[in-house]
Parts: sequence; structure tokens; C-alpha cells
Amino acid sequence: MKNAASAYVNERTENNVRWITLNRPDQRNALSLAMIEALTEALEAAAEDSQVRAVVIAAEGSAFSAGHDLREMKRLSDESVDSQQERVREILERCSSLMLSIVYSSKAIIASVQGIATAAGCQLVSACDLAIAADTARFATPGVHIGAFCTTPLVGVGRNIHRKHAMALALTGDAISAEDAVRFGLINEAVAAADLHGQTSALAERIASRSAQGIRQGKADFYRQIDMPIEQAFAYANEAMLRAMTSDEAEEGKAAFFEKRPPQWGEA
Amino acid sequence: MKNAASAYVNERTENNVRWITLNRPDQRNALSLAMIEALTEALEAAAEDSQVRAVVIAAEGSAFSAGHDLREMKRLSDESVDSQQERVREILERCSSLMLSIVYSSKAIIASVQGIATAAGCQLVSACDLAIAADTARFATPGVHIGAFCTTPLVGVGRNIHRKHAMALALTGDAISAEDAVRFGLINEAVAAADLHGQTSALAERIASRSAQGIRQGKADFYRQIDMPIEQAFAYANEAMLRAMTSDEAEEGKAAFFEKRPPQWGEA
Amino acid sequence: MKNAASAYVNERTENNVRWITLNRPDQRNALSLAMIEALTEALEAAAEDSQVRAVVIAAEGSAFSAGHDLREMKRLSDESVDSQQERVREILERCSSLMLSIVYSSKAIIASVQGIATAAGCQLVSACDLAIAADTARFATPGVHIGAFCTTPLVGVGRNIHRKHAMALALTGDAISAEDAVRFGLINEAVAAADLHGQTSALAERIASRSAQGIRQGKADFYRQIDMPIEQAFAYANEAMLRAMTSDEAEEGKAAFFEKRPPQWGEA
Repeated sequence: MKNAASAYVNERTENNVRWITLNRPDQRNALSLAMIEALTEALEAAAEDSQVRAVVIAAEGSAFSAGHDLREMKRLSDESVDSQQERVREILERCSSLMLSIVYSSKAIIASVQGIATAAGCQLVSACDLAIAADTARFATPGVHIGAFCTTPLVGVGRNIHRKHAMALALTGDAISAEDAVRFGLINEAVAAADLHGQTSALAERIASRSAQGIRQGKADFYRQIDMPIEQAFAYANEAMLRAMTSDEAEEGKAAFFEKRPPQWGEA
Repeated sequence: MKNAASAYVNERTENNVRWITLNRPDQRNALSLAMIEALTEALEAAAEDSQVRAVVIAAEGSAFSAGHDLREMKRLSDESVDSQQERVREILERCSSLMLSIVYSSKAIIASVQGIATAAGCQLVSACDLAIAADTARFATPGVHIGAFCTTPLVGVGRNIHRKHAMALALTGDAISAEDAVRFGLINEAVAAADLHGQTSALAERIASRSAQGIRQGKADFYRQIDMPIEQAFAYANEAMLRAMTSDEAEEGKAAFFEKRPPQWGEA
Repeated sequence: MKNAASAYVNERTENNVRWITLNRPDQRNALSLAMIEALTEALEAAAEDSQVRAVVIAAEGSAFSAGHDLREMKRLSDESVDSQQERVREILERCSSLMLSIVYSSKAIIASVQGIATAAGCQLVSACDLAIAADTARFATPGVHIGAFCTTPLVGVGRNIHRKHAMALALTGDAISAEDAVRFGLINEAVAAADLHGQTSALAERIASRSAQGIRQGKADFYRQIDMPIEQAFAYANEAMLRAMTSDEAEEGKAAFFEKRPPQWGEA
């Protein structure tokens, strides 16, 4: 068990699972530029650590994440629109880079959602491979409440759920329950709040017991092929599958299967 | 409250919601060329009216819409196939232009479905941003019953729901219940028939109370980005988000948020 | 009623429905190269037979299909990686050609799943237009259990269901129930095991009673347009719809509709 901490996120490893916990509860874990950078660094560290076989993004406090820090987004007194746009563009670009780094990470990343996930906070849930939430958690893309529209969050959310559900979130700005988020496909499961940590651990440790090299070979390719026409997707996937199925890790996996013994996986 | 009427659609505005009601119940609100034009014009008028902050497409009679008028589609006696194809092509092209104009409209458009929605009528539901139906409504793409296949309706329907559900509709031609349409994601909600008008009004007025300029900035971009590979989608969405978040409407929205007062939205 | 048999699949026609039954229960109907070829040939024969108006893929034994034959995938003693890759590449390419031939077949193809469908066996279910399963059937993409990742199966599965559900299957390798497969959209329906044959027959015969020429005109185009941006999809679908709606089969269908008589469909 290893512990580290920053002003923004806590990092902890338990049973080969890296827990990255957003730790600015008083700021409702807003994805400020500093939080985006802290989370990006924590995810990079997890990706590079050969002992880490699965990653959880969790949060402290009543909100999972309230999305961007509106104080960073508003025009300052005497500021020009150009200057404001330069600042906001940087935040948006770093935020979407963070989301893409989750999608294309070599490791499985699970969102463990204990409170409300709003705007870019909801997008963070959508970017993770899997999501499990307390049944008291809620989800919203409320840009229409502040004179805008959650266009960027809907890049992720709109790739998780059907479009009529995405538009209900975007056009009303209303929060949905964890139960509806399960029904829509935004999250995998809703559990009693008291069970969230335990259920997240169980899921993450189950994945950690699988072949991390297999996941490294295949996870990001899933998201790459899903954006291709089907013929191209098959051609692309066949090459990835070929490399994976003839790797030393897969030879060990097949041998263990035939010998009816547990496989000995390589490092992550 | 404003009232207008045509032989094909009624237009009415209440609480900043424009109700466009298909009004050819005896023809089961078939999407004849004349109906397509009337609906196209009514939607254009709604888009241009700064008092209209949300749009509802509803219908009179037992059918929401039976799809194309088959009398307009069949070969006339002594007509050449070429001549028939010229006529049918015009109907199909105007119909798909209508559907795209709904998708890319600057305003939120809600289908309020009181009866059966068939073929292009089902496509009309799929093109709207949101859909709410009486629990007695039904949905079908029955081209296989008349020697064809609902290929064009499935462009819309197939982008609303999973493909096995789309193929069940297309290959059997059978109608599904409103309950199944909710389960599949074709509609957002099924309510008691007696509550349809009230529930549609409540939903439309909730959207009308949000930032219409935010919706104008973002709605169509949702459908544009969803057709792009994810990296391109993020780049596109970030630029849209940047314009929206630094607009005067969003500055007002953020100021109201910080000052804990209701925002003063601009016109639609 | 016609009967044929091979060492790998049984072929039988009843009420214009061709049943193709995987018949290597002791090998858990593994998609060995020989099974892939037998199934490919049986599907080609069904496509060319004008009496066949719908196709069912079923299976004998406790497994619907266990996916690739791992004995064919593993490195042989003294074999070079290059040689293994050449063999495995051929299997993967023939397997994805089989899947694409199902997707683009001129006839409706229904999976009737009596047992567990694993890896490429699960992909086979995903490639079919419709799927009906015994409520005791299960579904898994367990590549991570053998040191790999079900990248190719997920091309099909990931186009059937939402991505968080696809990733749950891929990252855990765990089997899901038929009930969850219905909820996710991987299959259309789960029925009591004793009813599987009867319910599959009823569904297939309902489709067989529809216009086979309509299905021939439209089925494959559904999958082609769904991979296009929406404007291109409408343009493509309109041309297909135009041909279908002005065909002799559709003229008969419309005439029968207006004359309130059953249509006389042409051959498949």
C-alpha cells in the first residue's frame, strides 16, 4: 500500500488498484485548470506504474465533480473577450486532452461516483471505461442554466447513451438519478452509498486479476475501431487481435487453460 | 397566444412554445408532399420567431402520422417507371430535407405522439430532439408489408436505438408499444393519454425557461459532432463551447449564478 | 422439408425458413476454420435458394459457440511466431468475412441461442440481424482470461450495445445473463428454454411472410448507411428507397393495400 497526496487529488494503491481521489470537496471538485493538471499527472503515473493493474477515479465530498470552475470561465473586470477566450480555450483543450487520455489509456479506468457529476464532471464519468455510482448520485449537463450549452460534455455523454437521452440532459439541464443513468447506459451500476467503496474495489480487483497486457493490447483499440466503418474496423481489429493472440502472455493464457491451472500474468 | 391555421397544420403559441399540429386526421396525417411543405414552412416560421423558445410537433386524430401518402407513391395508370421515379424522388428528397431541418434547427423540437407513428411518421419522431407519447401510441416501420423496406425511416430510427431493435422493427414490420419505444430509446417517456398535452407542455415550458441562445449555440452542433471521430468531435465542440461560454448570454448566466439571482435571458 | 447434413452444420428448411445448426456439441461448436467454412457455405446456399425467406443460426449442445478453437490459435511446438501468425491471420480474416457476409446478406438472419456464446461465438450473435435466446443462455467476451482481449468480437458487440456495457464484458471477461443481454440490446428477447425453438420459428416465419424482395432491397443498406454521416446516409437511403418503392413487388404491395387483399410476393 502506497500513499501520496496533492492539494487536488489523493493517490493510493491497494491490491494493484490505483485510487485517484478528487480532493477539493469545498470546491465541489471543480475541474479547474489545476485540478485538470493534477488528474492528468496522476493518471500518467498510474499508467506508468507496472504494479497498477486497474485505476479508479473517486471523489471526496457531496459532489463527484461540478465541472469547470466558473470563476475561471467568466470574463474578468476590464478583460477583453479575446483575452477571456484565450484563457477559456486553454482550459477546454486541456480538459478534452484529459478525457482522451482516459479513453486511450493502456489501463482500465473506473469512475466511482459518490455524488452529483455535472457538466465536465459528467463528461469525466462518460470518458471512463466503466462507472459505478451510489444510488444517491445524480448526473447533469446544465449549460442551458448558465446561458450556454454543454456541447463538449456531450461529446462524451453522447457516445455513451442514446441521443434522445443525451438531448433530454442537454436541453433541460435537469439532473437524472443514478437509476436513470443505469437505464440510459451512462453508468454500469448503482449501489447503496454505503456499498460504493466495496463494490468499486471488488470490480477493480476483478479486472486487476485479468491479463493487464491483454487489456493494454486491446482497450484503446476498442475506442479506435468503434469510430471506423465496419470493414475498416474488422481489418484494424484483426491485426490487433493477431498481435494479442500470438503474444507470450496469450501463449501462457492458452497453456494455463489447457493445463487447467491459474495463468501467471506478466506485469501491467 | 397566437393562432394560425392551414389545411394541413395548425400553429399556436402558448407560453413561448409553438405547437405545430398535423391536422389531416382523416388522411392519418400522411406526409404527402403538401403536408411536408406545410410542416417545413411552419418549422421555418417557428425558427425565425424570436418569441418561440421551444417547438412541439403534435397531431390530431388516431394516427400521429402514417408516413408517406401511398397514393402519391404508386405508379399511375399508363405512367412510365421513369415518371413515377421522378415524382417519388422529389417526395423522398423533400422529406429528408424536412428531417434534417428538424435535426439542425436552432430550437428544441419535441414530438408529442398521441397515436400510431408509421414509416416516415416514425422517422419524424426519430428526427425530433425529444419525444413523449401517450402510452397507447405505437410505432412501426412496415415497408416489408407493402413490398419494400423502410430504408429511409431507418436512417433516423437507426440513429435513435440499438441496431437489433431497429432490425426487429424493419424486418417484421410489426408495431411496438410506447413502453417498448421507451425501453429502446426511441421516445423519452410514455404517459397516460389524458396527460399527454399537460406533460408535453410542462416539458416544453421547462426548456423554454432555459437559455434559448445557449440552445441555439449548441443543439445542432450535438448532431454534427456525433457523426465525427472523437478527436475531431472534441476539437469541433471546443470551438463551439468557447463561443458559447464567452457570449454575453453566458456572462449573464454566470453572473446570475454567482449573485444567486434568476438570469435574464435574451430573445430566442 | 429438406434435410442435409455435414460434419459441422445441419441444414433444414421448414416453412421457408432455413435452419443452420452448429453441430459440434462436443467441441462446444468452436469456430474452427472448418466450422467457419461450413457455416459460410451454408449461408451462401441459403442466400441463393429462392425458397428460403429467412435464416436461423442455431446450435446443438450446451454451448451456442465457444468462439475460436484455441488449439488452432496456440503456437505449435517448434513453430515460429511468423508461422503461427500466418495461421491465425487466416482464421481471423475468414471469421470476419463470415461476420460481414451475415451483415450484408440479402436475407434476414436470426441467432437462436440455446447456451453460452463466447468470444467469436458472441460476435456471431452480434452479427445476426436479430437474436432470441433461452433465458439460461449466457454471453461473454473472455479474452482477458487467456492473456488477450476480445478486440475482434467487440467490433460486432460494440456496434450492438452501449460502450460501458461492451467494456464491462471485455474488461472483466465475465458472462452476462440472457436478461442482461436483452437489457443491453445484444439480443431481442429471452424466452424459456423449452420455448426457444417455437419462438424462433414464430419469429422467422413472421419475417418469411413479409416481402423477401423488400428485405433484399433494404437489409444490407441499413448497415451501410448507419456507418455514414447523416446527410450522406439520407442521400444513399433515398436512392435505395426509390428503387424499392417503384419495384414491381412494391406496386403489388401497394395495390394489395388499396384493394384490402393479401399481397402476392415474388420469390426470395
